[in-house]
Amino acid sequence: MRIAELSRTTGVPVPTIKYYLREGLLPAGERTSPNQARYGEDHERRLRLVRAMVEVGGLPIAVVREVLAALDDPEKSLHKSLGTIEAAIGPAEPSTDDEVAVRQAEEFIARQGWDHKPQAPGFQALVSVLATARQIGHPGFVELLDDYARVGRTLAEMDLAYVLGMPSRDEVLEGVVVGSFLGDAAVAAIRRLARRDLSARRSAEVDSGSGADDAAPEPRPEC
Amino acid sequence: MRIAELSRTTGVPVPTIKYYLREGLLPAGERTSPNQARYGEDHERRLRLVRAMVEVGGLPIAVVREVLAALDDPEKSLHKSLGTIEAAIGPAEPSTDDEVAVRQAEEFIARQGWDHKPQAPGFQALVSVLATARQIGHPGFVELLDDYARVGRTLAEMDLAYVLGMPSRDEVLEGVVVGSFLGDAAVAAIRRLARRDLSARRSAEVDSGSGADDAAPEPRPEC
Repeated sequence: MRIAELSRTTGVPVPTIKYYLREGLLPAGERTSPNQARYGEDHERRLRLVRAMVEVGGLPIAVVREVLAALDDPEKSLHKSLGTIEAAIGPAEPSTDDEVAVRQAEEFIARQGWDHKPQAPGFQALVSVLATARQIGHPGFVELLDDYARVGRTLAEMDLAYVLGMPSRDEVLEGVVVGSFLGDAAVAAIRRLARRDLSARRSAEVDSGSGADDAAPEPRPEC
Repeated sequence: MRIAELSRTTGVPVPTIKYYLREGLLPAGERTSPNQARYGEDHERRLRLVRAMVEVGGLPIAVVREVLAALDDPEKSLHKSLGTIEAAIGPAEPSTDDEVAVRQAEEFIARQGWDHKPQAPGFQALVSVLATARQIGHPGFVELLDDYARVGRTLAEMDLAYVLGMPSRDEVLEGVVVGSFLGDAAVAAIRRLARRDLSARRSAEVDSGSGADDAAPEPRPEC
C-alpha cells in the first residue's frame, strides 16, 4: 500500500509516518519510483506499535528506537530481549541516595520472599516512590506496600498468562511492551472508576442530595 | 528560612525554586529586603508537593497550577475540589471516535454495576486503552478487564482508607494527589518486581542454568 493508505488504515497522519521513517522507527518501504514507496502489513503492525509506545507509553523517541532494536535483533535470545525491553520501558528513575527508602524497598522485597536484585526492573522505581513519599511528608505510605504486593502478584500472574498465550516470538515480545503500557494504564483507569463509585456511594450515604456528579470522596460530613 | 535553607531542606535546587516562584506554583516569600525573602513551613510543604507532581506525576506546569488553584480555593467545597483535582491529574486522553471501544468500556462498567458517567475520571482513559489495544492488533486485551476490576476495586478501597485517615482538609486533598501518583507508580513498580520473580521461577523450572539475572519470562523452552 501507499503511504496515504497506511495512514488511513492506522489513523496515523502522513507527516507523523514520515517523521517515524526519518527517525528510523519504521523501516523504509519498498521504493517503486523516486517519490513513491510501498508498505506492507509489517509496516502497519510496527507503526501501530510505535504509536502505542509514543502516545500510550509516552516514551521518548530514543527509547522507542532502543526497544525496537531489541525486538528486531535475531541474535538475542527471547530471554535477553525481554530483559532489554523490560529495562527500556521502565520509567527513567533518578537514582536516589535516600538510604531509608532503599532499606524500606529491600525489606519489602525480603518480606515477599523475592530475590533482591538492585538492577531489577521496578526496584529503582519503588525506591523512588518511597523516597518521594518521605520527601513530601508521607512517611506512612510505606505501610501500604504489603497490601500492594498481593495486588501486584495477581497482576503479574495475569501479565504472564496473557503474554504466554501469544503465538510467536515477535508477538510475545510485542505483548510485553503492550501489556506493560496498556496493563498499567488500564489498572490505573479502573482504579479511578472504582474510587469514583466507592466515593459516590459514600457521599450518597452522607447526603443523598450530593455526590452523584463527580469523583470526590466526601470524607466527613462537617467539611 | 532563606531560599538557600528551603533548598537544603527539600533537596530542590535554588534555580528550580526560583522557576516555581516565577511560574506562580509557589507563593512569594515574605520580603525582608529588596533581595531577600523569608519562607515558612507552608512553602516547604507546597514545594515538596509541586516537585512530586512535576517529577513523579510528570504533569505540565499549567496543570500543576490548575491543581494548586483547586487546592487553595476556599470557596470550593471539599467535594468539588476533589473532583477538580481528580480531573486535572488524570492523564490527558485524546478523545477517540472508536465506537467499539466506547461500547466495550460501557459494557464493562455496566457489568460492574457502576454508574456510567462519560465525564468520570478514568472513563476516557479506559476507552483510550481499549481503542489503542484494538488499533495495535490486541483486540483480546478487553477480556482482561473483569479480572482487572477486582484488583481496581481493592486498590480503590485502599486509596480511600488512606485519604480518609488524613487529619485536615488540606491534607485530604494533598493525599488524593499524592496517592494518585505514588499509588499508581508503586503498583506498577511492584507489578514489575512480581513479574520478574514469577518469570525467574519459571525460567528456573525450564533451565536451572539461566534466567536468574533479568526480568524475562521464558515462555517456551524451544525459543
